[in-house]
Amino acid sequence: MLINNINYRTVWMQDTSVYMINQQLLPFKFEIFQSKNYVETANAIKTMVVRGAPAIGASGAYGLAQGALAYEENNFDDFKRYVNDAYKVLNSARPTANDLSYALNFVKSKMFVNWSISNSKMRAFELAREYADWSVEVCRKIGEYGNKLIKNNQNILTHCNAGALACVDFGTALSPIRIAHYNRKKIFVYVDETRPRNQGAYLTAWELAQEKINHAIIADNAAGFFMKSKKIDLVVVGADRIAMNGDVANKIGTYEKAVVAKENNIPFYVAAPLSTFDINSKTGDYIPIEERSEEEILYISGIDENKKIKKVRIAPEESTAKNPAFDVTPAKYISGIITEKGVIRPVMEEIEKFVLSKYQNEE
Amino acid sequence: MLINNINYRTVWMQDTSVYMINQQLLPFKFEIFQSKNYVETANAIKTMVVRGAPAIGASGAYGLAQGALAYEENNFDDFKRYVNDAYKVLNSARPTANDLSYALNFVKSKMFVNWSISNSKMRAFELAREYADWSVEVCRKIGEYGNKLIKNNQNILTHCNAGALACVDFGTALSPIRIAHYNRKKIFVYVDETRPRNQGAYLTAWELAQEKINHAIIADNAAGFFMKSKKIDLVVVGADRIAMNGDVANKIGTYEKAVVAKENNIPFYVAAPLSTFDINSKTGDYIPIEERSEEEILYISGIDENKKIKKVRIAPEESTAKNPAFDVTPAKYISGIITEKGVIRPVMEEIEKFVLSKYQNEE
Repeated sequence: MLINNINYRTVWMQDTSVYMINQQLLPFKFEIFQSKNYVETANAIKTMVVRGAPAIGASGAYGLAQGALAYEENNFDDFKRYVNDAYKVLNSARPTANDLSYALNFVKSKMFVNWSISNSKMRAFELAREYADWSVEVCRKIGEYGNKLIKNNQNILTHCNAGALACVDFGTALSPIRIAHYNRKKIFVYVDETRPRNQGAYLTAWELAQEKINHAIIADNAAGFFMKSKKIDLVVVGADRIAMNGDVANKIGTYEKAVVAKENNIPFYVAAPLSTFDINSKTGDYIPIEERSEEEILYISGIDENKKIKKVRIAPEESTAKNPAFDVTPAKYISGIITEKGVIRPVMEEIEKFVLSKYQNEE
Repeated sequence: MLINNINYRTVWMQDTSVYMINQQLLPFKFEIFQSKNYVETANAIKTMVVRGAPAIGASGAYGLAQGALAYEENNFDDFKRYVNDAYKVLNSARPTANDLSYALNFVKSKMFVNWSISNSKMRAFELAREYADWSVEVCRKIGEYGNKLIKNNQNILTHCNAGALACVDFGTALSPIRIAHYNRKKIFVYVDETRPRNQGAYLTAWELAQEKINHAIIADNAAGFFMKSKKIDLVVVGADRIAMNGDVANKIGTYEKAVVAKENNIPFYVAAPLSTFDINSKTGDYIPIEERSEEEILYISGIDENKKIKKVRIAPEESTAKNPAFDVTPAKYISGIITEKGVIRPVMEEIEKFVLSKYQNEE
C-alpha cells in the first residue's frame, strides 16, 4: 500500500528485526515499530501494534524466524527446543487468532532441514517470507475478482477496516476498491466510522486518504440514509469467520447494514480468503460472539489541539455499557463471498465445493 | 424529572430571570444557566444551552414575558413595539424551530389586555407559564398512553434523546419509559449512543441514571445484534416532523433501527405530540433533510482525566465527512405513533382524524 507515496507492507523482516506499521498510533501518527527479537514481536501482537488475522499470522511467522536466527549454540535437538519455546510464546500472544497458529505451524512444520542449524534458520526465514507473500497474493486475487463487480462511477460502502493494515497488503474488503482505483475507475467510498473502536474512521479512511481514493467518513447511523437515497451502489465488508452455510461473523454493525442493503436491493458482498471458512461451524449459530470491555464505548481517543493523543470519557459517570464486538449476518442477506478462487454464492453446496478444493490443493 | 433527587424542569422562570439546565455541559457538569433578559435567553437558544423543540418553545415564551417585564416607560403603543422587537430577536434564534414561533405567537397574540401595560406584563408571564404547563401535560399524557404498551420485565431500545431535557419535562420517547418506571414496572433500556452528536450517551443515559432506571449504552452498530438476539422487546423513538401519511423524520439512524426492528418482528413506536404532524407534508418526500457540519463527525468532546471538557479529533487529517442530521422512516416500518390523544396507526385517514380534531379543539 502507498503511504506518503512509498510502497509499504504492514509487516516485514530485515536482518533479524521484524518491522510493523504501528497501528496503535494511527491515524494520528505514522511510525514503524522495530521488534528486535521474538519476545518483542509476541508483545507487539499482544498490544495490537499489529492487528487483523492475516497481519498477525505473518508477524508470528516472522517472529518464529527471528527465534530461530537468535539461537547461538550448536546442538540441533536443543535448537529445536529453543524454536519450540519461541513458538509457544508467539502462539499465546492472541489466543483466539486462528491465522496465528496456522502461520506458526506452516513455518515450524517445514523449517528443520538436514539436521543443519544454519540451513534450518535460513529455511525458517524463507518460509515466513513465503507465508507473507502468499497472504499478499491471496488478497490481490480477492481484489481482482472483486474489481469485476465494481463499475465506473460507483459509490461503495464499507464497514470497519478490512484493509491492507489488517493484512500484509491490499486488504480483503479494500482490495477490490484498491484494484478498481488502480484500474482508473472513478469510485467514491462511504466509510462507516465503525463505533466503538472506530477502525473505519481511524484506519480505512487513513488508507484511502494515503492512496488518494475519494471517500467520506459517515456516522454508522447514516449508512441507511445513503442507501435509501440511492447514493450507495454496493457494499463490501470483510469477515472474521464464515460458517459453512454462508453465515458471516464480522464487526458489530455488519448485520444491520446487510439487512438495510437487502431492503434497498443493494448488492452486499463479503471479501475474505478461503481460510476464513470454519468447517466446524455448520451455521452462524455455532459462532460464539465475543463481548469486549465497556471501556471501548465509554471512552474514546483522539488528538487534541496540541496534536497529543488524548483519551476522554464520553458518557455519564453513572452509566454502564454493553459491547458485543461481532455479529452474525445470515447468508440470505449476502449477495456473494469474494475469495481468492472467485465469487462464491453463500449456499452450503457451493461453499463446500470451494473449501474442499482448497484443502485438496494443500494436501 | 429527578436530578440529584430534586424535581426539575428543563426551563422555568422566576422573577425576571429564565433558568435552564445547561445542556452544553451535560453529562459532564450539571449547571443551571440564569438568563437575566430576553437577549440572553435568545442567545441561550442560539448556542444550544437549551435544545429540543418543546424546550425551545417554552424558553421562547418565557423570553417574551421577560421582554414585556423589562419595559419601563408608560406608552402602550411603544410597549407593543418593544415586545415586538423582543419577539423578533427570540424568533430568529433558531430559524427552523416550528415550536418556537408557535410558542411566541401563543403569548403575543393573547397578552395585550385592556390597554394596561402592567396587566399585559402579568398576562405575558401567565401565558408563558401556561404554555410550559401545557407542554408538560402533553408529554405526561404521551407517557400514560405509551406506558400501556410496556409490559413488566421488558427491554426497550431508544435512539437519540427525546427525553425530559428536550421538552419541559417527561420527554416524548422517554415519557412512557419514565411512567412505566414510576409504576414500578421492571424495565431495562438499551440506549443507542447516537453518533455523531451522542445525545443518547450524553443525555438519555444521564436522564436514566438520574432516575435510577436500569440501562446500558450501546454502540449504534449493536442495536441490530440485540434485536436479532431477542434482547429487545420494543423500540420507542421521538420525531422531529411527521408527514400526513405517517412517514417520520427523526435523528439519523432511526430509519436503520426501524428496518431492522421490522425484520425481527419487534414493535417500533414513535412518541410525539400532535403538533409534530406537518399538514404541509403529504409524505416524507416533502421533508427536507438538514446536512450539518462535518466537524460533528471528525471531532468529539469528552472529559479528560482531570475532569476537564476536551474536544479531540477522531479522524485522519486528510479525511472529510458527510453528515446528514435526520432521516425519514417510511410509515410501513412504524407500529404506531404515541400522541397525547392516544396511539395512532400511521395511516393517512387516522392521522387526519386526529390532527384535524386537534385543530378543531384549538379554534
